[in-house]
Amino acid sequence: VVVAEIVSIGTELLMGQIVDTNAQYLAAVFPDYGIGHYHRQTVGDNFDRLVSALRLALSRSDLVFTIGGLGPTEDDITRKAIAAALEDELALDERYAEKLRRLFSQRNLPWLDTQLQQAYHPRSGHFIENPNGTAPGLLCRKNGKTLIALPGPKQEFIPMVEGPIRAFLADVSGGTVLLSETLKVLDMGESMVEEAIRDLIHGSNPSIGIYAHPGEVHIRITASAEEARAAADLLAPVQKAIEARLGARILGGKEATLEGDVLQRLKAKQQTVATAESCTGGMVAARLTDAPGASESVVGGIVSYTLGAKEQALGVRKETLQAHGAVSSQTAQEMAEGVCKALGAYWGISVTGNAGPTESEGKPIGLVYIGVSDGTDTTVEEHHFRGTRAFIRQRAVQAALSHLRRRLLD
Amino acid sequence: VVVAEIVSIGTELLMGQIVDTNAQYLAAVFPDYGIGHYHRQTVGDNFDRLVSALRLALSRSDLVFTIGGLGPTEDDITRKAIAAALEDELALDERYAEKLRRLFSQRNLPWLDTQLQQAYHPRSGHFIENPNGTAPGLLCRKNGKTLIALPGPKQEFIPMVEGPIRAFLADVSGGTVLLSETLKVLDMGESMVEEAIRDLIHGSNPSIGIYAHPGEVHIRITASAEEARAAADLLAPVQKAIEARLGARILGGKEATLEGDVLQRLKAKQQTVATAESCTGGMVAARLTDAPGASESVVGGIVSYTLGAKEQALGVRKETLQAHGAVSSQTAQEMAEGVCKALGAYWGISVTGNAGPTESEGKPIGLVYIGVSDGTDTTVEEHHFRGTRAFIRQRAVQAALSHLRRRLLD
Repeated sequence: VVVAEIVSIGTELLMGQIVDTNAQYLAAVFPDYGIGHYHRQTVGDNFDRLVSALRLALSRSDLVFTIGGLGPTEDDITRKAIAAALEDELALDERYAEKLRRLFSQRNLPWLDTQLQQAYHPRSGHFIENPNGTAPGLLCRKNGKTLIALPGPKQEFIPMVEGPIRAFLADVSGGTVLLSETLKVLDMGESMVEEAIRDLIHGSNPSIGIYAHPGEVHIRITASAEEARAAADLLAPVQKAIEARLGARILGGKEATLEGDVLQRLKAKQQTVATAESCTGGMVAARLTDAPGASESVVGGIVSYTLGAKEQALGVRKETLQAHGAVSSQTAQEMAEGVCKALGAYWGISVTGNAGPTESEGKPIGLVYIGVSDGTDTTVEEHHFRGTRAFIRQRAVQAALSHLRRRLLD
Repeated sequence: VVVAEIVSIGTELLMGQIVDTNAQYLAAVFPDYGIGHYHRQTVGDNFDRLVSALRLALSRSDLVFTIGGLGPTEDDITRKAIAAALEDELALDERYAEKLRRLFSQRNLPWLDTQLQQAYHPRSGHFIENPNGTAPGLLCRKNGKTLIALPGPKQEFIPMVEGPIRAFLADVSGGTVLLSETLKVLDMGESMVEEAIRDLIHGSNPSIGIYAHPGEVHIRITASAEEARAAADLLAPVQKAIEARLGARILGGKEATLEGDVLQRLKAKQQTVATAESCTGGMVAARLTDAPGASESVVGGIVSYTLGAKEQALGVRKETLQAHGAVSSQTAQEMAEGVCKALGAYWGISVTGNAGPTESEGKPIGLVYIGVSDGTDTTVEEHHFRGTRAFIRQRAVQAALSHLRRRLLD
């Protein structure tokens, strides 16, 4: 088995200022290529300690990944530490230096000579292109070991993992093929899912893991074989058996998202949607427009945070608000119907509730009403969520999209 | 300086199935007691590798914390590995064994003998009480080193850190106090910030770290001394010097957020705001309503994803859209003015742009216009962001709130 090790670099990690989601992201990629992962290290922006950490990693692992410390400031020491750990020296890449200078002049940014350190790489290595930042990655091979350096900013890091790093790992892994599929299940709890598929969870190939996420349960099926075809033959029957049991509650494969699924169904029916949000304050609309191409199906939305906005922009009746309050089934109904009309959409979704942290109108924290209307038939669901304000808002968004999806399935 | 090291234990961490928020939580506590933290390790549920990791940690750090692997199942190996690393043996605590048995019978749970392993501790150590679970923590002292084992489940881990661990660290740290402050800077890049305060970054007490976040740069100043007063006296002049240079670009202290700062300024002026969003699809409104109590200042918002919605809900003129397009300074202006009127707010913020992934109306990806209007004076800023769709949207939200903040400062 080829063994990888991650070395995360940054004093802010050791100070607990940020969570190391990059390391988790990369770690989750290794199993796809049957690559082992037995150790992970985190060190601060300290040259000697980083060099020691790299030497230790190189002594016990085949592939060593560093994350962070490639930028232009003084505490970006990764490049130099890698050269030291490999007993190599840094060489200036004139072409890259030129490219950097050009970039700065094109963008009218003041040039600082410290930027130039990004144009150096160890002689034994080469750059990995970084389309979203000025610091390229590094790939160095020496004595049968490979050392790869990736930048820390998430918007640079993730595209590099998904592009060149996945390609590299596929190449390295050679023999064993690990094939996995994730089925995302809506509207069921973790133990309900386990109960429903318990008799299918036996043996270790394919293996089945069940993971709880807010408002979704993920079932991960993983099969390994010497060829992709054989792995697929192991995986397929188990996947089919699970799909047969859970039916439309399954959202789709690995890449499926609830918002993507809803948009696809809207597009297929050539229908549009508009949102009317109170306690979620725009989060339903934001999530529906996460994906490109949403403008075909999403007309827009209205965030009605005050009573006045509910009346003026959505046409909720004053009597309804007075008799039942803003957090009520009746208000949810009129909001969903109102936004359909106001924005001329086929579907209207509404969310009104109390996300906390205090009771309001005598309505308890976590009480949320979700309405879905097609102009003639409006359904309202009542939810009682428990947790922090952020969690209640997140669950409400999930429940709103799931409610619309169920209406679209009918 | 007393040096601590964290060893996180769990194959699920190395598989990337969960993020290690516990390690971050504990790491953030060390600076409060002036305790150094130079290395962190993560290992799977493997006895030999865990023993090696513990030996390495004991060889270079004074306090070694393990997180996880204390439960009753077979892959809970931490207790045995600690005994091996300390060359100690495990002893059964009869009283704790009895307590466990009683607990199970009281709760009518079936007793399994595997539960009993939780009643063992190394002879050189003792238990740390865990009020929220069956596995107690461990504290072992040998050869001048201290090894502390904490359980992994968050609801058990956090109360133990906040209780006995903080008490222990206060006791250990005795002398040194570390004091730190974070200044969040808006509208400046990382190297511009470094350039502006370079001459202040010298010496190591106080030390200054600069960290880039999307749309913000954080400056962390850390001072250590034998007394809180002396640390504050070291920190204050550096903080003042930085504040004097960067002025209102500094958002505030550690806990400050851009949305919180904007809400506070609105509240102080008794003014309200409404949002008109296109490419950010509701994200500005969602962020403004993240904090409780936003309803005093946030009236609501309109997400106008289509041209029709821009006309109907915001009153943008058809001629404007035809002549300049949806992504234009003119449209941003009319959106900001329109939402002020439509929702009756003092301020209107608008965002219209192309977040990608393709050109539209011939407007390049990343071009975003942000308007802020008080009904009589509307300012529009043009931005060119580079990156993924998600990143462009995030930067646009940040820029919109920062633009409103600058208007509120006037």
